[in-house]
Amino acid sequence: MPLIEVHLERELFEARHPEIGRELQLAQIEALGTAEDDVFQVFNPHGPEELKFDPGYGGVDRRSLMVIRVTLVHKHTVAKKRALYRGIVERLAVLGIRPEDIQIAMVENTFEDWYAGSL
Amino acid sequence: MPLIEVHLERELFEARHPEIGRELQLAQIEALGTAEDDVFQVFNPHGPEELKFDPGYGGVDRRSLMVIRVTLVHKHTVAKKRALYRGIVERLAVLGIRPEDIQIAMVENTFEDWYAGSL
Amino acid sequence: MPLIEVHLERELFEARHPEIGRELQLAQIEALGTAEDDVFQVFNPHGPEELKFDPGYGGVDRRSLMVIRVTLVHKHTVAKKRALYRGIVERLAVLGIRPEDIQIAMVENTFEDWYAGSL
Repeated sequence: MPLIEVHLERELFEARHPEIGRELQLAQIEALGTAEDDVFQVFNPHGPEELKFDPGYGGVDRRSLMVIRVTLVHKHTVAKKRALYRGIVERLAVLGIRPEDIQIAMVENTFEDWYAGSL
Repeated sequence: MPLIEVHLERELFEARHPEIGRELQLAQIEALGTAEDDVFQVFNPHGPEELKFDPGYGGVDRRSLMVIRVTLVHKHTVAKKRALYRGIVERLAVLGIRPEDIQIAMVENTFEDWYAGSL
Repeated sequence: MPLIEVHLERELFEARHPEIGRELQLAQIEALGTAEDDVFQVFNPHGPEELKFDPGYGGVDRRSLMVIRVTLVHKHTVAKKRALYRGIVERLAVLGIRPEDIQIAMVENTFEDWYAGSL
């Protein structure tokens, strides 16, 4: 039951949201081993100047910003988290989204912190 | 000072947001024992295809998605958390919102992680 | 790599977002000692009634609501967190944003929970 929230430019959402959603889902399955139908994605399209960033932080050439927040149960190794980052940026790169323009932030909780449609 | 963030379809927000806000608040009071005036709710109405989900994950018949994020201080028992889930879905069901269509994700922090209007 | 998410009234965003972004960034640098170019801010402008609050909770005279979410690595002292709250509300007060109208919620994670443009 990871919850994925994506903040991105509205033009990018409108042009590519089905592919972005699908690639995020595939990256999640591959890296974390979640079920194929475990999909909870919230896309937040943004207007101009709502996503603020520095073009050079961390020594990368950043031209835009896509923020991906992942809320998930604390149980995955650091290696799996890194595999998720790699999977996301490699898959989104195929869609023309630059790895340099992506920020990912994870927050962990426990199994008891979720409700997903049935008590 | 729980913070409740709701992601929902724009039509649902426009049709029922006062009732949804009130029922979430009542569920919070009943389950967690928070003060009656402890209300911090952020509603995020969404357009088509911004909320992505699988209709069958977890063996439920899901037709729409409302994501409710709760950020709160780590101090509540699992029983209280479950009471909150139950209260939310039972109260929203009265408004016509199906329990199957709701996802709730909690994230906990500590008392020192909050500012609420005065230092 | 703190991630700052701001929920605010659309009118306020449109009138003052460059200054709000800058002051949040300066407060972060001063309180937490982050790099000057460490800027990841997501502004979420809201329409009427999307931000729900009680005008008197906590004994303050609240007239509006700006919610500031901060996701950051667990490493800062409580004193630094309080310095951040103070810096934010004092700096935003200069812009005419009342300290009583601000809520700040922090959530902590670890260094491994971030990707910021390079693997």
